[in-house]
Amino acid sequence: MERDVDDGDAKAHETAREASEPRRGSGRVTLREVAAAAHVSVATVSNYLSGYPYMRATTKERIERAIGELGYVANTAARTLKTGRTGLLTLSVSDLRQAYFAELSERIIAAARDRGYGVLIESTGLDRARELASPTNVLNHATDGLIVSPAMLTARDTDVFAGDYPLVMLGVQPFTPPCPYFVVDNVRAAYDATTHLIQAGCRRIAIIGGELSGPPSSRTTRALGYRRALEAHGIAFDQRLVRPVKDWNGLAGARAVTALLDDGLRPDGILACNDHLAFGAMRQVRDLGMNIPEDVRVVGFDNIDEARFSIPSLTTVDQSADAVAAKAVGSVIAQIEAGRRAPAMLEHVPHRLVYRASSPEA
Amino acid sequence: MERDVDDGDAKAHETAREASEPRRGSGRVTLREVAAAAHVSVATVSNYLSGYPYMRATTKERIERAIGELGYVANTAARTLKTGRTGLLTLSVSDLRQAYFAELSERIIAAARDRGYGVLIESTGLDRARELASPTNVLNHATDGLIVSPAMLTARDTDVFAGDYPLVMLGVQPFTPPCPYFVVDNVRAAYDATTHLIQAGCRRIAIIGGELSGPPSSRTTRALGYRRALEAHGIAFDQRLVRPVKDWNGLAGARAVTALLDDGLRPDGILACNDHLAFGAMRQVRDLGMNIPEDVRVVGFDNIDEARFSIPSLTTVDQSADAVAAKAVGSVIAQIEAGRRAPAMLEHVPHRLVYRASSPEA
Repeated sequence: MERDVDDGDAKAHETAREASEPRRGSGRVTLREVAAAAHVSVATVSNYLSGYPYMRATTKERIERAIGELGYVANTAARTLKTGRTGLLTLSVSDLRQAYFAELSERIIAAARDRGYGVLIESTGLDRARELASPTNVLNHATDGLIVSPAMLTARDTDVFAGDYPLVMLGVQPFTPPCPYFVVDNVRAAYDATTHLIQAGCRRIAIIGGELSGPPSSRTTRALGYRRALEAHGIAFDQRLVRPVKDWNGLAGARAVTALLDDGLRPDGILACNDHLAFGAMRQVRDLGMNIPEDVRVVGFDNIDEARFSIPSLTTVDQSADAVAAKAVGSVIAQIEAGRRAPAMLEHVPHRLVYRASSPEA
Repeated sequence: MERDVDDGDAKAHETAREASEPRRGSGRVTLREVAAAAHVSVATVSNYLSGYPYMRATTKERIERAIGELGYVANTAARTLKTGRTGLLTLSVSDLRQAYFAELSERIIAAARDRGYGVLIESTGLDRARELASPTNVLNHATDGLIVSPAMLTARDTDVFAGDYPLVMLGVQPFTPPCPYFVVDNVRAAYDATTHLIQAGCRRIAIIGGELSGPPSSRTTRALGYRRALEAHGIAFDQRLVRPVKDWNGLAGARAVTALLDDGLRPDGILACNDHLAFGAMRQVRDLGMNIPEDVRVVGFDNIDEARFSIPSLTTVDQSADAVAAKAVGSVIAQIEAGRRAPAMLEHVPHRLVYRASSPEA
């Protein structure tokens, strides 16, 4: 990873100084020695260390090999004191084991790398105390900014994120975040997914993972959009078709289908609040001898990689994870460069229904 | 995250100094003010900042809230210069989107947190140049040590990891790593999984994801163990039952099953080189009207979380990800504390077959 966040002049100055620095007894390797070993110019090594994007892969590899062999070390700690920056971001997510968060993290790492930043990942494991502690790294100046997607906060926790440090929040929160805030319009997304099922002919649509009451969350906002779509299309709302589940995994999705049938409800459409729930629901529907999409249509949420590979492949709501990653990284770096937090601002990222075999476009 | 890696005396000294420091015009908040706001002693706040593990959750939460509200900042950059340490580790994995790596990363984050370290995650996306660059952060002193699990290196890349910085490698490599090195005995693990299928009565066992030739890798070592088990039990080896696939995902597993049947081979047992391949193979086997395990037994590799929830649940090789995470973090921190790399050492972590519905114990 490249760490230098100086402006061009400062870099040129530093390069000149380091290049002219004699080899010391301590074994400190100079930029000039790296350049000689890699058969490139000192300026090229400097560009490499600055994260210059337009460099041939073979050149990069030669420099990396020379750095590895010689043990060149840039004095990052001294640079941090000078610039006040570390070149690192903290990303705090609730559970890296959920594919959605792993894929979002992967995209945030890539977006940050493109800007020359590294990413410190904290996975809170749905532990409220750890979520409350998520600003610690940035407050300690271990990193320059925080991107956080908490899941266990309450309306009174807004103070936890008070301050002027660079901050971006993701996901539905029970309070108005005091910073730029990127989230899909969950009510609208669930409305659109439910409308698709209705237009495809479904009349008994179940929602797995939705909850009718509680503070704002993915669970409540998606249930609200589902309900509004039913009402807008003149379909009676039946509370028994709303199936809250604690853990959004495949087993819970399968069990929700069993419970629906045990209760004498035979849905012809299922909206699952994430793709794992949808996979479990699909397996159970097929195990019980029903066909997808002929007997039951299934729509998921998130569009994780696996949704393309499931059998049948899954129609699902794409939440623009690429756009979320790019916007979150762009905003937090802009705040770092401005030296202060940006004003509170909600931005809805686009969503779209990706049609696949589990519920083709009507 | 807690960052202090000083010894006890140094901490006590620093605490006393900071506690007596007057509130400055710059708005710098003292430890004493945090303690007052949290209604705890200065020593308790100091313990919190040092990562002291035995602290009530409510106490931690009060301190974290006070830190958030007051904006207390420890001067980490100055501390880094003083101690020469950052309190951070780099973890470089090939693909966070693969559940195995997401789950391993989650465990490494947890193990590091227990020791007061944060984890910078680099996901190389199977990009060879990025794998070669994985030592950059630690060489730049942005982090104190490196845990790396490369997948794209060749036998001549051993020099890339030369040096004295703290280093742990994971996964099968095409060279002997110059550091402590933790990996499951893949030959033995595949041997055991294949032997289980044989003992359960399978005689035409396919391996999906294995490769017969190439430098040492998960692909070749698992194919070798498979072949040895067949030979040890007097079953003729049939090269057509070895199905290399590039991407180890569900779609590839499904396609491998189709290809086997198209070639007139009807396996009664399948060893998949990871769980995603096994899930895809199982779905395709069932779609083609065969029953698991009656007609075809399926065994996977990795024991990712989802293996418990699939239908049928998956018999798979557990690779002791918890043990790998604990050993990797323990070793790299021991090297950091010793101030030098530990000698090259291979340690096989235990593996065990977890029996579930896709292939019950015979």
